[in-house]
Amino acid sequence: MIEFLPKCRKNGNEFEFSKDDLSSFGIREGISETIISTGLESPNAAPIGIIVKNERIFVRLFKGTHTWENVSKEKYLAANVVYDPLLFVRSTFFDLEPSEFDYVPVHGLNFPILKLASAWIVFECADLKNTDHALVADLIPVKAGFNEANWKSLPVPNRGFNAVLEATVHATRYQLTGEEKYLELIRHYESLASKCGGENEKKAMKLLYEVLGL
Amino acid sequence: MIEFLPKCRKNGNEFEFSKDDLSSFGIREGISETIISTGLESPNAAPIGIIVKNERIFVRLFKGTHTWENVSKEKYLAANVVYDPLLFVRSTFFDLEPSEFDYVPVHGLNFPILKLASAWIVFECADLKNTDHALVADLIPVKAGFNEANWKSLPVPNRGFNAVLEATVHATRYQLTGEEKYLELIRHYESLASKCGGENEKKAMKLLYEVLGL
Repeated sequence: MIEFLPKCRKNGNEFEFSKDDLSSFGIREGISETIISTGLESPNAAPIGIIVKNERIFVRLFKGTHTWENVSKEKYLAANVVYDPLLFVRSTFFDLEPSEFDYVPVHGLNFPILKLASAWIVFECADLKNTDHALVADLIPVKAGFNEANWKSLPVPNRGFNAVLEATVHATRYQLTGEEKYLELIRHYESLASKCGGENEKKAMKLLYEVLGL
Repeated sequence: MIEFLPKCRKNGNEFEFSKDDLSSFGIREGISETIISTGLESPNAAPIGIIVKNERIFVRLFKGTHTWENVSKEKYLAANVVYDPLLFVRSTFFDLEPSEFDYVPVHGLNFPILKLASAWIVFECADLKNTDHALVADLIPVKAGFNEANWKSLPVPNRGFNAVLEATVHATRYQLTGEEKYLELIRHYESLASKCGGENEKKAMKLLYEVLGL
């Protein structure tokens, strides 16, 4: 087995941050699709994009979600870099098990990250602003790490994996609106996941179909 | 800068193959989207999926393409793992410059790989079968390597990058058929690349629009 290791600079596989490090962790201009973990008391995870625009790093959290609640209260979140399509679908529609989280010490707290993450970055949330439906928070990177055990293979682009991400986005919109156009998109991506994906993509789409009652 | 390095086992960053290694290089069940380089005399590159199905590794090459011509004659190809969206679009519609290739010694040959590849695998092509429109060849991995210099950042999932891949697929279909439905899909993905991608995704979509005269 080949494993992918960073050239570590501090404390084994954990880092204190400079701006260069952040782009090395793959958080770059545009929206990076990560699974965000929060909640010091009761850990929670949900797929959310980290937005980088004009050198500003921020996140938009919908009101009423667990992530929104935890960030409003605790002002920290962890972005987990995940290549498992099933975990994207599971964390969108279900609560993960407490046993799926690890804890890392950050600013005197024990912060939850995902055991299945290939890498993770803990951010402090600053300058919180409420809009009608969402909370926008600037993100200050505090600490990050790699999980060697999860670097089992190179994440080669796979249209099936990408299709699961798209289907998941459209599934949440379908649940909100019931609009038929989202079902058509989901069916399109199911066929792509089936054609181009592996076992995990197929499992992920099967679960998504179950959730939607298709 | 953090770099991702494999735990190398032989000859620095180059490997002889076992089946385990192949999955470590990210070539797994389903279709892995790589850029394939071929041509001992005049190097060529084009995005083509490596298919793994029921433990068989193979590729389908359309007749009349440079890749098809080179593989028919020389019976080798290299799968390059690339995270640069612009290179996907450029190698789909244009010839790359000779200066964009490196050469690695394989079975007494000097085989072309892409300088921008994060990793590459040279395959021998066996059991070539012609269908009406394509050549199907089984792939036997021979040698692979990593390019440390290209591991500038973790490839975190990005819907903008994924959208460029989808738009490129639909652009080739549009060129073949002229069907309006492909243009609609391309416009959908352009908007996604613009919303979720970074500079490279935007440059890639701009070039794709130029190619199609949009």
